Amino acid sequence: MKTNVKLCSILLALLAVVAVQQSNATAQQATRASAPLPSWNDGPAKQSIVHFVEKVTNPGSPDFVPLPERIATFDNDGTLWCEQPLPVQFFFALDRVKALAPQHPEWKTQEPFASLLKGDLKAALAGGDRSILELVMATHTGMTTVEFEQEVKGWIATAKHPKTGKLYTEMAYQPMLELLAYVRANGFKTFIVSGGGIEFMRAWAERVYGVPPEQVVGSSLKTSFEMRAGQPVLLRLPELNFIDDKGGKPVGINQHIGRRPVMAFGNSDGDREMLVYTQGGNGARFALLVLHDDAAREYAYGPAKGLPDVKLGAFTQALYEQAEKNGWTVVSMKTDWKKIFAWEP
Amino acid sequence: MKTNVKLCSILLALLAVVAVQQSNATAQQATRASAPLPSWNDGPAKQSIVHFVEKVTNPGSPDFVPLPERIATFDNDGTLWCEQPLPVQFFFALDRVKALAPQHPEWKTQEPFASLLKGDLKAALAGGDRSILELVMATHTGMTTVEFEQEVKGWIATAKHPKTGKLYTEMAYQPMLELLAYVRANGFKTFIVSGGGIEFMRAWAERVYGVPPEQVVGSSLKTSFEMRAGQPVLLRLPELNFIDDKGGKPVGINQHIGRRPVMAFGNSDGDREMLVYTQGGNGARFALLVLHDDAAREYAYGPAKGLPDVKLGAFTQALYEQAEKNGWTVVSMKTDWKKIFAWEP
Repeated sequence: MKTNVKLCSILLALLAVVAVQQSNATAQQATRASAPLPSWNDGPAKQSIVHFVEKVTNPGSPDFVPLPERIATFDNDGTLWCEQPLPVQFFFALDRVKALAPQHPEWKTQEPFASLLKGDLKAALAGGDRSILELVMATHTGMTTVEFEQEVKGWIATAKHPKTGKLYTEMAYQPMLELLAYVRANGFKTFIVSGGGIEFMRAWAERVYGVPPEQVVGSSLKTSFEMRAGQPVLLRLPELNFIDDKGGKPVGINQHIGRRPVMAFGNSDGDREMLVYTQGGNGARFALLVLHDDAAREYAYGPAKGLPDVKLGAFTQALYEQAEKNGWTVVSMKTDWKKIFAWEP
Repeated sequence: MKTNVKLCSILLALLAVVAVQQSNATAQQATRASAPLPSWNDGPAKQSIVHFVEKVTNPGSPDFVPLPERIATFDNDGTLWCEQPLPVQFFFALDRVKALAPQHPEWKTQEPFASLLKGDLKAALAGGDRSILELVMATHTGMTTVEFEQEVKGWIATAKHPKTGKLYTEMAYQPMLELLAYVRANGFKTFIVSGGGIEFMRAWAERVYGVPPEQVVGSSLKTSFEMRAGQPVLLRLPELNFIDDKGGKPVGINQHIGRRPVMAFGNSDGDREMLVYTQGGNGARFALLVLHDDAAREYAYGPAKGLPDVKLGAFTQALYEQAEKNGWTVVSMKTDWKKIFAWEP
């Protein structure tokens, strides 16, 4: 029987290995199932997310959504990272103006550049959309797509938020990073659908959010294919191609994704149509708005009820009412989030 | 020892289960590794594909490509399925004209519709691009994106190729279906990049090619977001948005994917810029052209050297020479493919 005993030992050892492997897998599943969204307080917002994800991923549920259809779309500025005192891409444009100024002596007297170079942001942006467009064309075009990507990557590696002194990429909301990971762990493909520049975001979205370039939808300029010194390049032209905001968001979603999202996340009037479009699909759908109501830890610019509407990144009273009427989840940054940024003590 | 023997039996049974599971996995790996591309004859074309895929997926190779960067782009008409005697989308448009004719009495005298309704395809297309555009606008617009998708799905489920009598979806090239599966099994994301209509292809590309809607790039019309009877819809407008052909292919790739492909596959002059752009990236790149030289099993319209250039889906002499110069793989359908269609005897 010696051989048998030895055989048994070997078999037991082999099974122990298998058991450990299985228990590792089980432990991972348990972690995923028992403690998702650790930076979210237990409350109706977190519960609505977890409840929805559980029902659409349960094959026995009438609300089950097959894997290929699990599409989740996220606005960026104010939804995934801080957009105050200005959306980050503005700061990039401002720094580009300063860097390019020596090559553009005419900017000393030409608006919006003159005011910008004097540090008067308010005067520079007084021209509204036209000023912004001029700023974008002057700083975002005339180079290849590869050169622009390198420009953005270099800038974002060191540029810091004017109030916190943190890198802009550290101004991503920790609860939303957890949310991205949570829905991905449940089979969702996560897309960014933002009014921001598509190539600006692609330069860092994979590193910061885990969202690859092919899953970033945004506003864009036209490009043209050309040979330069024998090399094939795409030139960024001073001509608008697409504005991915408001009614443009469902258009951009259809153009890039070709499916209606099952979950959509935003924070302002610019996201309203994306949420309406998402909710208009057949079967279970989920819509969420982030409400900026924490002046101490971030900024408070979403209106508590009754406060006057604000313009930039506006979460208007009308949007609030539509969210209530349509059953959208509204996240209070103040009460629903344990921490807003990963670096908080 | 009875207990021990029983225990041993149980352990052996458990290990047998594990062994079977592992051998299944190993068998799958073996199939993948030892017999990829079964419908391809062993020859330089097949060898060039396998050699490339093996070197870019080998972590020890200087040509290793990390998983997120493994992007492969495929033209559709003439590369993944048959485009003769006309690209399939034309037949869809023709059938739509017939179906819509009762609502358009003016088409009896208005070109290109009048000739089409009389069955004179040549006269109908005599107007060139303008005729084609009018045909597209009349048959592809004025409905929601959902309605259009249903229209295409209904049509493609029954419409048959005029020569073979097979469903159009059965006119997909079996060797290319195997190629799609092979590069995907090696971590590549496969994209279609076609001059055809993006929403026409999305209606069946997932079922036929395993390519999901978000990985289809094509020509498109503008859409607008609207509320219709309280429901959010996207309306297809009679206005061109984008032509995904020639220099438009790299533009479309950048717009939708945001990365330069590592592998690109085409069959005509319309794919030249996509292949040039792909090859222009850093590191190992692979470009392939399918040459239509098999009149018996399909159609012969790619020029054997010295034959005159043809227009539709043209594989011109100039393209042939560029392929040779640039080291692109040229696939002879006649000699490189054991079978062209899955249903061949």
